[in-house]
Amino acid sequence: MRSVVILGSTGSIGENALKVAESLPDAVRVVGLATRTKVTRVIDQALQFGVEVVAVEDRAAAAEAAVLARPHGIQVWAGADGVTALAGLAAADTVLCALVGLAGLQPVLTALETGKDVALATKEVLVAAGELVMRRRAETGVSLLPVDSEHSALFQCLQSPAFSPVCVRTRNDEPAAEDRVARLVLTASGGPFAAQPDIDFERVTPSQALDHPRWAMGRKVTIDSATMMNKGLEIMEARWLFNVPAERIGVAVHPESIVHSLVTFVDGTQLAQLSVPDMRFPIQYALTWPDRMTVAMPALDLVRQGRLTFEAPDESRFPCLRLAREAATIGGTLPAVLNAADEVAVEAFLSGAISFAGIWRVVEQVMAEHAVRPAATREAIMEADAWARVAASERCGLRGTNKV
Amino acid sequence: MRSVVILGSTGSIGENALKVAESLPDAVRVVGLATRTKVTRVIDQALQFGVEVVAVEDRAAAAEAAVLARPHGIQVWAGADGVTALAGLAAADTVLCALVGLAGLQPVLTALETGKDVALATKEVLVAAGELVMRRRAETGVSLLPVDSEHSALFQCLQSPAFSPVCVRTRNDEPAAEDRVARLVLTASGGPFAAQPDIDFERVTPSQALDHPRWAMGRKVTIDSATMMNKGLEIMEARWLFNVPAERIGVAVHPESIVHSLVTFVDGTQLAQLSVPDMRFPIQYALTWPDRMTVAMPALDLVRQGRLTFEAPDESRFPCLRLAREAATIGGTLPAVLNAADEVAVEAFLSGAISFAGIWRVVEQVMAEHAVRPAATREAIMEADAWARVAASERCGLRGTNKV
Repeated sequence: MRSVVILGSTGSIGENALKVAESLPDAVRVVGLATRTKVTRVIDQALQFGVEVVAVEDRAAAAEAAVLARPHGIQVWAGADGVTALAGLAAADTVLCALVGLAGLQPVLTALETGKDVALATKEVLVAAGELVMRRRAETGVSLLPVDSEHSALFQCLQSPAFSPVCVRTRNDEPAAEDRVARLVLTASGGPFAAQPDIDFERVTPSQALDHPRWAMGRKVTIDSATMMNKGLEIMEARWLFNVPAERIGVAVHPESIVHSLVTFVDGTQLAQLSVPDMRFPIQYALTWPDRMTVAMPALDLVRQGRLTFEAPDESRFPCLRLAREAATIGGTLPAVLNAADEVAVEAFLSGAISFAGIWRVVEQVMAEHAVRPAATREAIMEADAWARVAASERCGLRGTNKV
Repeated sequence: MRSVVILGSTGSIGENALKVAESLPDAVRVVGLATRTKVTRVIDQALQFGVEVVAVEDRAAAAEAAVLARPHGIQVWAGADGVTALAGLAAADTVLCALVGLAGLQPVLTALETGKDVALATKEVLVAAGELVMRRRAETGVSLLPVDSEHSALFQCLQSPAFSPVCVRTRNDEPAAEDRVARLVLTASGGPFAAQPDIDFERVTPSQALDHPRWAMGRKVTIDSATMMNKGLEIMEARWLFNVPAERIGVAVHPESIVHSLVTFVDGTQLAQLSVPDMRFPIQYALTWPDRMTVAMPALDLVRQGRLTFEAPDESRFPCLRLAREAATIGGTLPAVLNAADEVAVEAFLSGAISFAGIWRVVEQVMAEHAVRPAATREAIMEADAWARVAASERCGLRGTNKV
């Protein structure tokens, strides 16, 4: 039985995590919930799951929540500090982090430092602070369990009685999984535009870019799917989770989104994980690992599916892949800068301030301007993040005049 | 370092096993070789790998071998007894059995009883004597490692730090892999005729049936692929190796032969093993399990492959699948009878005595005539096998007049 705190419980991953908890009452107990602003929903969730503590990041929203919560005896912890405190909740053994962006970093570090396993959906945490987070995991000996469907797929393919991936390694006497891996292949749906070679990226609208063919997700990650920056961020995430260098992490466009990723081992064999695209699969695996629990989940019928296709991504149309590889190779604070610039640029695109192609132009320009430094401390990372947000905002014409 | 006896070293699997041994000199040492009749080749192999004992099943051939072997100080053991004695060779810790048909049964039992792991390519042994062999494996606590590409794929997908399949289970404190399996899916190339819906099975010639689209294999298994009896035998093999009932073992026709089989777990997730079709992959895994060794093997490029397709087998065109499921469900000596009748019928087809469709008619008739008995002892199985050979020979017009 895992006692789980869900950070970001009112988002898409959080709601799916609660469905998983509901379907596995003997394996998963929810003991804490955090949201940024969705007060009514988080209190409803707390009542449904008998949760006694919620955290609300936005302080005005937290005051509202306190009023709603009082009659039910639910505690409300306010602000980013409240969220971080919840990540250290004594009653929890596992923290599922599904916060958006670098807001997840301090809570993840706190969870690791207080001896909790972390189920991580917030890829930005590893993109920007992979070295720091993985070092903390190794020091504390807890597990960092991937929730992204691609990384869960890789993690499932790496299960073995003979070796373990570095994100969970516990035994000293076994060979490292990364020494048995020749290559990781992340599959990508390709987003809405991979199959539209003639579309003009200067004229794409937000609603076109938000129309993802396979997955219902938050707005940021949906736009990142359309630019394929999401796959670039996932290369960096995989690099840290499995200690495999970015040069050995490939991407295959797989429009059906059935094969969630593949591992090629040193003996030439590949293992793949498949399912219908539904985030409950990877969330449940993270919460029940290394075992598997019986639940009524939508089954994949390969014969009905009929075929699975794979093609190379067109990096000339999707320069975010190149930018991400560059950031991964150079390292230091550059991935944090890429991540922050992308976040600002996506917001600017959604608000109409820049074009779709402007997203990668902003990211590339901000990366070019950045003086890379080591990313060994949270302070260095947050400073690079803050710098990149200002630089990207200026590029987007949100603060300065350099509209892209 | 495994010390391996290869039974059937001059056949297709045996030759591939020697290639694997050659590529892994620090992990695999060959200490014994057995052939039925190919004397020159087996002595050459013994010289190349520094093997001191060979067994030759055919006694006349064994006498020839002794002459060739004497100058090199190689011992030659003669007859089926010689092969069985080699399976118990003190210097070996592993026996790879790639003999054709039930000739493998006694050597496999001897290997298990003398505490050796068995890498099993001879599926007939499990088809006919699964209950007996798996009981012996459990009693002796050694491992039975699948070599068939499909079963190796399933075995690879079932590796976990949390549970083990019954063919290798060693710890009492872990849940059984079969309790975590919802379904096994064996993939099938479909043989040469799945893609030819209009072909007349009364007029198919041996050379048409031997023209397999993907795998270079022995004649018997190639014809079994064409009738899809091979997949039926594999259902029975999987049933014993993984303790999953035949009703939960499906078949998907997958003409590309890239996905070698899949496991669907109780949580709805599927794992699949993929590689280019080359028997060295499963042989090497069996000899290096649970670890994986680095070798230069042909790599699968999924993007170059482009697509993978899956369709349901047409059981009305390929009645062998139905017959095999029937034999698996009824059990006892019926699978041994199916196996023996099929072996005789395939030979009769190759020699022109019966038509291609005659193969399954003979098998069905012999099964219908058989009075099923328990298959708990080697004697009961050998008796059913002998009876079925006579009955099938008569049906084929080889001894009687009931030509099919």
